[in-house]
Amino acid sequence: MKILALDSSGLVASAAVVEDDITIAEYTINYKKTHSQTLLPMLDELRRMTELDLHTIDAIAVAAGPGSFTGLRIGSATAKGLGFALDIPIIPVPTVDALAYNLYGSDKLICPLMDARRNQVYTGLYTFRKGMSPDAGYDMDVVEQQCAVDIAQIAGLINGLGTDTEVLFLGDGVSVYREQIAELIRVKYSFAPACCNRQRASCVASLGIVLYQRGIMETAAEHSPVYLRLSQAERERADKGDQSC
Amino acid sequence: MKILALDSSGLVASAAVVEDDITIAEYTINYKKTHSQTLLPMLDELRRMTELDLHTIDAIAVAAGPGSFTGLRIGSATAKGLGFALDIPIIPVPTVDALAYNLYGSDKLICPLMDARRNQVYTGLYTFRKGMSPDAGYDMDVVEQQCAVDIAQIAGLINGLGTDTEVLFLGDGVSVYREQIAELIRVKYSFAPACCNRQRASCVASLGIVLYQRGIMETAAEHSPVYLRLSQAERERADKGDQSC
Repeated sequence: MKILALDSSGLVASAAVVEDDITIAEYTINYKKTHSQTLLPMLDELRRMTELDLHTIDAIAVAAGPGSFTGLRIGSATAKGLGFALDIPIIPVPTVDALAYNLYGSDKLICPLMDARRNQVYTGLYTFRKGMSPDAGYDMDVVEQQCAVDIAQIAGLINGLGTDTEVLFLGDGVSVYREQIAELIRVKYSFAPACCNRQRASCVASLGIVLYQRGIMETAAEHSPVYLRLSQAERERADKGDQSC
Repeated sequence: MKILALDSSGLVASAAVVEDDITIAEYTINYKKTHSQTLLPMLDELRRMTELDLHTIDAIAVAAGPGSFTGLRIGSATAKGLGFALDIPIIPVPTVDALAYNLYGSDKLICPLMDARRNQVYTGLYTFRKGMSPDAGYDMDVVEQQCAVDIAQIAGLINGLGTDTEVLFLGDGVSVYREQIAELIRVKYSFAPACCNRQRASCVASLGIVLYQRGIMETAAEHSPVYLRLSQAERERADKGDQSC
């Protein structure tokens, strides 16, 4: 099957076209431009370079949150627009799960950290487990579902898993919380390098294919991103006790 | 340090700009266009999208072979041209090593397979080993250096490592040799998914930074690709015993 994948959940904008086990094209930018300036031109560039007929795409996999509210809306709006126009399903891929998929097949505990501001990270804990047959691939198990917590909470969960645990951190939260990680983490740990430490649309696509095979998909009309937290505007309204609008 | 990385060693063309542990931009195409049509336009696209001043680049990392002879020449010629113009060093990154780097930190035996035609693969065997300190990263150890062999030879080496071995295959040779792998391999094995099973320039860059720190670099004048085998023309000349030209 042919998947178009998008991730604009964080600082990174990434688009990919994946057919079964081959990435036909992937384009990733981690630069200060806003995703509304980059994502569609990047997609168009991929389409042009690979002479892609959009009507051959079977589904759109999108990093469906959590993440930057504006970023998620740009990604989801793009996916919804294309999904409507092409009449194909959307595979909503949890952002943190897709980030963890960068380290496919690892025996370490994978801990993505996305800076969520307000002293929180979007994070989760993941392991990979080989299937039963000798030639089976690896299934990603969710040890701790994606959530918005402070760094001490996720560190506590990691330390609680025992001293044999070895954890691999990745994501844009690493540079923000490097000192706290050194103070808080009591097990062996390290940080993923540049080639596998940020959002990549091909990870969204690869995990998206797994989810699609499990029947996880929705129509363009049904799709909306998962924010995990209230937006700033909603928070401020709740703080004021103003429920009028 | 800021690295420009290129990989046009196989079917994939890939370019990336990496600064320390962040991939600023990566663009990868696995499509039937030739690299002479794609690589420089892709590089120019990255430059434009990230407003990159080429003079801020510290070194050029290039997949230096083995691989397609024409592909390697396009990659190396591009690296040499830029290296001359910008007066910066070239980091020659062994192609198969960079491919293995896709699976950073894995505890499995990593076996990249690049279809080398003529019933051979460009391959090698790799493991990752955590450094000594609790927060150290992983060093990639070369168990079997990159080489051109037939699939039975590399399968024999893998089987000889013992029944506890678990191997992860990747690369464009997987689809060519899938049946032979099933017949020949006596240990647990699996195949990497689309997000991490082909050449990516950010892997060339990440491994390139490691090599640079070990002093592995050369001038643009010194650089030339490593083919590992004779070219078709050289082979045919040798077969004819014609040493005249």
